[in-house]
Amino acid sequence: MAKESIKVGIVGGTGYTGVELLRLLVQHPHCELKVITSRKEAGMPVADMFPNLRGRVGLAFTEPSREALTACDVVFFATPNGVAMSEARALYDAGVRVIDIAADFRLKDVTLWEQWYKVRHACPELVAEAVYGLPEVNREQIRGARIVANPGCYPTSVQLGFLPLVESGVVDLDHLIADAKSGVSGAGRKAEVHTLLAEASDNFKAYGVPGHRHLPEIEQGLAAMARRAVRLVFTPHLAPMIRGIHATLYARMTKDADLQGLFERRFANEPFVDVLPPGSHPETRSVRGANVCRIAVHQPGGGDMAVVLSVIDNLVKGASGQAIQNMNIMFGLDETSGLQQVALLP
Amino acid sequence: MAKESIKVGIVGGTGYTGVELLRLLVQHPHCELKVITSRKEAGMPVADMFPNLRGRVGLAFTEPSREALTACDVVFFATPNGVAMSEARALYDAGVRVIDIAADFRLKDVTLWEQWYKVRHACPELVAEAVYGLPEVNREQIRGARIVANPGCYPTSVQLGFLPLVESGVVDLDHLIADAKSGVSGAGRKAEVHTLLAEASDNFKAYGVPGHRHLPEIEQGLAAMARRAVRLVFTPHLAPMIRGIHATLYARMTKDADLQGLFERRFANEPFVDVLPPGSHPETRSVRGANVCRIAVHQPGGGDMAVVLSVIDNLVKGASGQAIQNMNIMFGLDETSGLQQVALLP
Amino acid sequence: MAKESIKVGIVGGTGYTGVELLRLLVQHPHCELKVITSRKEAGMPVADMFPNLRGRVGLAFTEPSREALTACDVVFFATPNGVAMSEARALYDAGVRVIDIAADFRLKDVTLWEQWYKVRHACPELVAEAVYGLPEVNREQIRGARIVANPGCYPTSVQLGFLPLVESGVVDLDHLIADAKSGVSGAGRKAEVHTLLAEASDNFKAYGVPGHRHLPEIEQGLAAMARRAVRLVFTPHLAPMIRGIHATLYARMTKDADLQGLFERRFANEPFVDVLPPGSHPETRSVRGANVCRIAVHQPGGGDMAVVLSVIDNLVKGASGQAIQNMNIMFGLDETSGLQQVALLP
Amino acid sequence: MAKESIKVGIVGGTGYTGVELLRLLVQHPHCELKVITSRKEAGMPVADMFPNLRGRVGLAFTEPSREALTACDVVFFATPNGVAMSEARALYDAGVRVIDIAADFRLKDVTLWEQWYKVRHACPELVAEAVYGLPEVNREQIRGARIVANPGCYPTSVQLGFLPLVESGVVDLDHLIADAKSGVSGAGRKAEVHTLLAEASDNFKAYGVPGHRHLPEIEQGLAAMARRAVRLVFTPHLAPMIRGIHATLYARMTKDADLQGLFERRFANEPFVDVLPPGSHPETRSVRGANVCRIAVHQPGGGDMAVVLSVIDNLVKGASGQAIQNMNIMFGLDETSGLQQVALLP
Repeated sequence: MAKESIKVGIVGGTGYTGVELLRLLVQHPHCELKVITSRKEAGMPVADMFPNLRGRVGLAFTEPSREALTACDVVFFATPNGVAMSEARALYDAGVRVIDIAADFRLKDVTLWEQWYKVRHACPELVAEAVYGLPEVNREQIRGARIVANPGCYPTSVQLGFLPLVESGVVDLDHLIADAKSGVSGAGRKAEVHTLLAEASDNFKAYGVPGHRHLPEIEQGLAAMARRAVRLVFTPHLAPMIRGIHATLYARMTKDADLQGLFERRFANEPFVDVLPPGSHPETRSVRGANVCRIAVHQPGGGDMAVVLSVIDNLVKGASGQAIQNMNIMFGLDETSGLQQVALLP
Repeated sequence: MAKESIKVGIVGGTGYTGVELLRLLVQHPHCELKVITSRKEAGMPVADMFPNLRGRVGLAFTEPSREALTACDVVFFATPNGVAMSEARALYDAGVRVIDIAADFRLKDVTLWEQWYKVRHACPELVAEAVYGLPEVNREQIRGARIVANPGCYPTSVQLGFLPLVESGVVDLDHLIADAKSGVSGAGRKAEVHTLLAEASDNFKAYGVPGHRHLPEIEQGLAAMARRAVRLVFTPHLAPMIRGIHATLYARMTKDADLQGLFERRFANEPFVDVLPPGSHPETRSVRGANVCRIAVHQPGGGDMAVVLSVIDNLVKGASGQAIQNMNIMFGLDETSGLQQVALLP
Repeated sequence: MAKESIKVGIVGGTGYTGVELLRLLVQHPHCELKVITSRKEAGMPVADMFPNLRGRVGLAFTEPSREALTACDVVFFATPNGVAMSEARALYDAGVRVIDIAADFRLKDVTLWEQWYKVRHACPELVAEAVYGLPEVNREQIRGARIVANPGCYPTSVQLGFLPLVESGVVDLDHLIADAKSGVSGAGRKAEVHTLLAEASDNFKAYGVPGHRHLPEIEQGLAAMARRAVRLVFTPHLAPMIRGIHATLYARMTKDADLQGLFERRFANEPFVDVLPPGSHPETRSVRGANVCRIAVHQPGGGDMAVVLSVIDNLVKGASGQAIQNMNIMFGLDETSGLQQVALLP
Repeated sequence: MAKESIKVGIVGGTGYTGVELLRLLVQHPHCELKVITSRKEAGMPVADMFPNLRGRVGLAFTEPSREALTACDVVFFATPNGVAMSEARALYDAGVRVIDIAADFRLKDVTLWEQWYKVRHACPELVAEAVYGLPEVNREQIRGARIVANPGCYPTSVQLGFLPLVESGVVDLDHLIADAKSGVSGAGRKAEVHTLLAEASDNFKAYGVPGHRHLPEIEQGLAAMARRAVRLVFTPHLAPMIRGIHATLYARMTKDADLQGLFERRFANEPFVDVLPPGSHPETRSVRGANVCRIAVHQPGGGDMAVVLSVIDNLVKGASGQAIQNMNIMFGLDETSGLQQVALLP
């Protein structure tokens, strides 16, 4: 290929979004991984932590170094919330494109962000500058963005599922319901009791029903589509599986509509959204490891309730795959470049 | 105890409700298992099929025999739908109490039943006679019943969860939503591709969104509580686990109410319904193997939507345990007799 | 029963052997739970940590108190290794029977113990006094014991499986192999990355192949049976399941023997060892939640290798169930008292 | 690339080796899928059965047609045992290369094959002609082969693990032991009770201990390496996971040897065998979806027993990936072409 490789840096990278980013970047034809930092694991070869990368990633984790990072074209933050907001400024000023896979730049309302994330925002001025990286909604702004706030996993599945209904104004925007189920990799690679296999396997539970950080993010996105405020009840659940989100969405229809046609038209040109035929039930495994959102829409019993089923792999379309999709758009590459993996089934 | 043992027969019994019935009956202080029939497996010792029963159940499956069954005090049908309706009459006439764990006698509207179950009903006259065996609603009628229609698994979890809201008339009865998730044992012990471990593990999907047989059963039950028709959207999902149902219920409140108090009062004297403290999230594993329904109620964000979380073990409170609870009531035993197993956690 | 209840105390009890002990004790007809201590969780109701015990255990965890514990007839240590050896002395001196579910008193050779457990032993004089609580081997000594070292989970399954072969002297004692597979609850209720569902599910691996603490315990037990030293290769594996150990044992036969008869005779009177018919393959789920070891023995292809398959629930016969079995023996109760739970299948 | 695409046909293809072949071929730069046959599913679009292939495979299953198949350069049989032996002859005679992923051509001794597979062999004359497709052993013969017998999943993991020990003559060849654990996808996409999630999940068991069809295949392979007969005890187990084989191999050393060096040298130039550093424990998930065998070798306690840990993905290096590796060799392509997928972890 004539095109020069994009020089890529990763900050963090010892968690699941990190290893997934590496898995995808290794197979990307136009990227060169230059540096991956981890204060805690500096010196450890990446492949010692993630044995699937043996023979494919030769780098070791290094201490964060501004010099090494500013030599990159793009830097991904695969860090816990609160890191990117402290470190993005310097990279931004140096002309490096920044893609934050965490939540630091997702909410435009900094006060609201601080309420939900319980810390003071270190860099509110970049929040305004940041583009919310949901390509199906914001593709044009992403193209010119210098800093992208990569959407959360639940927000991706829920917003894509509601998008045609909300944009077209056919549903009651004050009583939207998102009943979402996630595999435990969504909780990250942190040692915690409640995500141990012995606790979470052969078990099912809701959590965060009184309030979850992804709620304001979703409401912000839906409001932008609707051009007015919306009201959502969001119920996340922990399912006993590794990957996958299944969002089951309920909206009361206020106008008649050909729902199937509405969805098919809205996503006709989207490379990573697949609208299933009428009567379908998408499975999370059909997107395992793939950068795809599969969607089906129903109107049970011919009643006035629209039911949307939306599935993604939380680590791919819900995190690292979407981050690379955003990178592709920002750098003028084919949007599907390096993202053509077929889901692993069974 | 001075009381004589109840002589118990089981028709069917090679499926999951059968083995669960056996597990519980073996530990019941007032029951004696006399006969278990299976046309297909006649001659096979029960413990050869279900090795957990080795040393505890000495019986072999036998050919169905009216003589052996009419010598029993009670006969459980742990059969596929459509068997009990053909065989219950003779037992009923002989004065044997009948408990059908399948669906044959659940719907009072026989025409509706025939639509959903796609066969002609063989015994409509007993449908009127049958009592729907949800003790928390129908305890008094069960006491005198000669034939009990044991509720389905989804219907048990959904009806118990909606019960205080619907009875008290504080919610919109035309837009109820039940988003329910079940372990695969709910599909029974049938060889089918979609419930293979290689298909259903590490996967999540909805099914039956256009219509599921448990919908009319739930609507019938809720209508009886409300004393008017109700309208429900019911979305069942298959979760990658063996046992457990988690029903997440949504109802729009039409009146202010102290939901926590409402639930606590309604179930205060129920031995097998446990209302959790405010802010709780019940887990299916907290009822694994136990005849308990655990419930929490929320009103997220102080809005007008009530969200109820209701969990049961589909094979116990959702099937065989509830069947024994019904038997206990019918025979004047302590309702909790033989049903005090503590859930297996982890 | 005329017999007064046994007053029971538990030290520790926030881990899996603790909750399993509680599940079983709650169903024991001759026990009264008086106290359960946890320095870290003092004040928390037990049922808040373990929701399966809601309505069944009213106690809260309390600060360890010598007074409360010495008022008990028996105290179980469900603690990490290294706690019982510091605290057992005082209870022993006060005449309280002690059952240590951890490893502090298992190895008679204190120097060897210190090598494997990497700490100085705090109470070597009680090591000699302690009886190794494998009833199938040491029933008579357990009867008179004041302190019992409850066997490890792997050691229980491996020793019971090898017992008839080693006692009868028909196999090469220098080349025994135990290839053992365990569910992750064997690793305890500790927050660790490698036992997260996202790490351990849909995965299989060996661990500790260079050396595992259960190796010297097993070798000590087998040597006692053989009345000479033995040599074992022990390979533990982590299987993606909650409960269960499957030990696959290999021994080269040095004499002809009727293996099936040998096993059946040896365990004929054992209430908790079940020898399966020739050609069988025991499943771990057939003992899930039950205090049973199921065993099958093979001689593949008529060759000179005996292959034994031995399964237990690591938390029951491999820990808390066996501890109660030991208590029953020590207090002259029926050995099966409170231990008649049927395995949960499916 | 200048090279013309290879025209590929698949016979069968409705099972797991079929969908896996499709997943890999879709990403292969030098293949063109021309036809996929299924008598039973003729007419059904492939992507309707396997939703991960939506948008990637446009073909429908067709009735088997000799014409369509002989127009291909290579035909894969992803069929049950017994199909390829009836249909390969015609393709072979037409000059089409044949790769049988089933077992029809694996055993050189046709009488032995007939004993184990319980049918008469339909095409014994091609058995002699067929090359056993284990590239690490037979690369040169595969290069010129017109028909390849692709190895079984267990045989791949076991033979690669034993290869350096057996070739170098440092172990006792009369007492080899292979204790192997497989995910349930190894049993295929057949509706059977024992592989239902409700049966096989949270469970572990051995099977086929008295004898398994892969035993003679492995013994044949090891004998060829050793240039003498060998004797193996082979114990397969079913692990509660979808993909992956973990073979734990035991061999008694008859000579001193630097095992680590032996393994590293033997596989130094193998693109798909990864020898881990000393003291390692490979995990099956480290090869999930990848055409890699990862191996570690131990000598526990400095004794005379070599313990080898060998992991593969049963559907990739154990089936369809290896089949494509064989195709690459046969057609003079880079051996790694289309097989560079990174394992999916977590």
